[in-house]
Amino acid sequence: MKIVDISTRSFRYTSRTERDSEGHTHPGPEREATQTMVTVKTDDGAEGYAFGAGAEVIRGLVKPLILGEDPFDREKIWRHLNEMQRGNRATLTDRVIGVVDCALWDLAGRALKQPAHKLLGGFRSKVKAYASTMCGDEMEGGLNSPQAYADFAVQCKEKGYTAFKIHTRMPPIANTPNPKEDVAICAAVREAVGPDMALMLDCFHWYTREEAYYIGKELEKLDYAWLEEPMDEHNTASYIWLTENLTIPILGPESAEGQMYTRAEWIRQKASDFSRAGVMDVGGITPVMKIAHLCEAFGVRLELHSPGAGNLQCLAAMGIPGEYYERGLLHPFLDYEAQSPWLNRIDDPLDSEGNVGISQLPGLGQDINWDYIKGNEVTRK
Amino acid sequence: MKIVDISTRSFRYTSRTERDSEGHTHPGPEREATQTMVTVKTDDGAEGYAFGAGAEVIRGLVKPLILGEDPFDREKIWRHLNEMQRGNRATLTDRVIGVVDCALWDLAGRALKQPAHKLLGGFRSKVKAYASTMCGDEMEGGLNSPQAYADFAVQCKEKGYTAFKIHTRMPPIANTPNPKEDVAICAAVREAVGPDMALMLDCFHWYTREEAYYIGKELEKLDYAWLEEPMDEHNTASYIWLTENLTIPILGPESAEGQMYTRAEWIRQKASDFSRAGVMDVGGITPVMKIAHLCEAFGVRLELHSPGAGNLQCLAAMGIPGEYYERGLLHPFLDYEAQSPWLNRIDDPLDSEGNVGISQLPGLGQDINWDYIKGNEVTRK
Repeated sequence: MKIVDISTRSFRYTSRTERDSEGHTHPGPEREATQTMVTVKTDDGAEGYAFGAGAEVIRGLVKPLILGEDPFDREKIWRHLNEMQRGNRATLTDRVIGVVDCALWDLAGRALKQPAHKLLGGFRSKVKAYASTMCGDEMEGGLNSPQAYADFAVQCKEKGYTAFKIHTRMPPIANTPNPKEDVAICAAVREAVGPDMALMLDCFHWYTREEAYYIGKELEKLDYAWLEEPMDEHNTASYIWLTENLTIPILGPESAEGQMYTRAEWIRQKASDFSRAGVMDVGGITPVMKIAHLCEAFGVRLELHSPGAGNLQCLAAMGIPGEYYERGLLHPFLDYEAQSPWLNRIDDPLDSEGNVGISQLPGLGQDINWDYIKGNEVTRK
Repeated sequence: MKIVDISTRSFRYTSRTERDSEGHTHPGPEREATQTMVTVKTDDGAEGYAFGAGAEVIRGLVKPLILGEDPFDREKIWRHLNEMQRGNRATLTDRVIGVVDCALWDLAGRALKQPAHKLLGGFRSKVKAYASTMCGDEMEGGLNSPQAYADFAVQCKEKGYTAFKIHTRMPPIANTPNPKEDVAICAAVREAVGPDMALMLDCFHWYTREEAYYIGKELEKLDYAWLEEPMDEHNTASYIWLTENLTIPILGPESAEGQMYTRAEWIRQKASDFSRAGVMDVGGITPVMKIAHLCEAFGVRLELHSPGAGNLQCLAAMGIPGEYYERGLLHPFLDYEAQSPWLNRIDDPLDSEGNVGISQLPGLGQDINWDYIKGNEVTRK
């Protein structure tokens, strides 16, 4: 089997979110937005799909590298794309490689009529989810105060969630970042949901050591499950210092470059307690599974970053380590259950006990709404 | 798909090897021997096969644990078998789990009509092999002297091998272990094959630090590629010391218990330069791939132990790290190309350039001679 084409197809949808000047997503006015689907095709008609990479890099950089390859040679293809990043850092990002790798897993699963996790070796068919909030805001009825976070946490608990992760209020919001407000939000949430719900904090990412230490110490008193990325992850020495000085688990690296190599370094240097990776951060299912295996060998827990079909396939194949699925981002104004009109079924349905069931459909397990995509197509390349 | 049976079938074959009192294999008189094949069956008729585990442990311990499981849930099954080792160390060995795991990979591949490495994600279709000798002996025309090893290395070079690994003469042979003789053998082989052939040494496993250091220093002068297991692997401190004090790469751990956990520890403690694992040492393809991913993240080379279809599938999926396939054990008296009458085709055909081609048949890629097995069956359980 040989790859004969990789193409992109863009289509319109109505977005109800917008990004602020620092890149954080919030509820916004309805607006027209564009999503892109990557399709890999083989000479015998097999196809695989994944969402989220741009037409230009796929056509210009990826296509010449993968035409003629066996789509099942994911290890060879990933390695080649990874090496080609050296001269193409700006365009051939880990996110792009992640989309391509996911499309190849999707193709393999669809061709063999198996979900990707059964090719990897299955461990479980559902996973505990945590409700992951958007960053806070200044909207009336939004996530604009400790009490607002507390109310939203109670709503999530009532939906079945057993765990809740806070993204606090951050720049460009006035009077932020503010470690005291972060702690006040965390305290209000703990007070509202009681002692049994697992709570986590993902706060401003450029705090000083002292600010991060202060927040962590307070979270220890509030019995929080982890503290995530409170400082610049390029400053490994600060993470070593923080991990040494706090008992609350430090989670990372998430945004630091370097895929499995960086995770290995953080483990070696004890720069965090739990490791972190996501298919769109490190280049797909292939490297996430490598990181899972690295962490397993060291007895280090790995918590996957971001929602999505690719991460769910990994979680299904990596029972140890990996406790939670990140479900979100959530906000009181948005209906998370209805966010992707290009799918007939959301990727991550929540049951009444707070678990997400992992799709047993082939490949990534997505149920694509072809009529929607065709009906809203903008370009095809 | 559910597992409805796991059974064993033993059959006779003619062996031309025997084991000495220390467990080393040598050429021997023709004798009747027994091989055992494990078969996993599912409710929809899929089957998977692997050779080498005993009937009693399969029926008594493994069968109750895996009946009713989805055979594609290898991660779940492996984890359960691994945990059950705690109370069953004497019988439910990593070797037994390795055979079961290989049978499950064989089943998945056969059911999906793909070689196992294409499920994992392929990297390559051939791999460099080294000729791996039997331990030396006292036989006329055997591996009984430095010159005999040198002559055999030249024969192997003429067959196409680009690399040659020596197992020296060891107890119960008189006047062994003998570091000076080991070095004399290594020197004679280097002298005979010239500077371009890669050479490795796997010697007596209970040398002292001083003996191992002496051998390693001499091998550095002879440009050997690695020194393997010259001391008891439970003595990690000695390996740290040796690795620190020699420039020749130290290879290990091979026989130490603890699968990926022990490999992680050796990397963390710098107890070797290259890591080592084999499907029958650590419990199958599943943990070997974890170790490959662990090593990749740390930039540590992994050299697989022993020949066989399972290790070849791993090598095909783990281009980095992993340079060689261990082909053997070889001896001047034996025809390696004709050793397994229960196969229609050997697992590891050698090409004229010293590479082994990796089978593209489904599952483990083995071509089983059913007529032979049926015609020589002893018991079925």
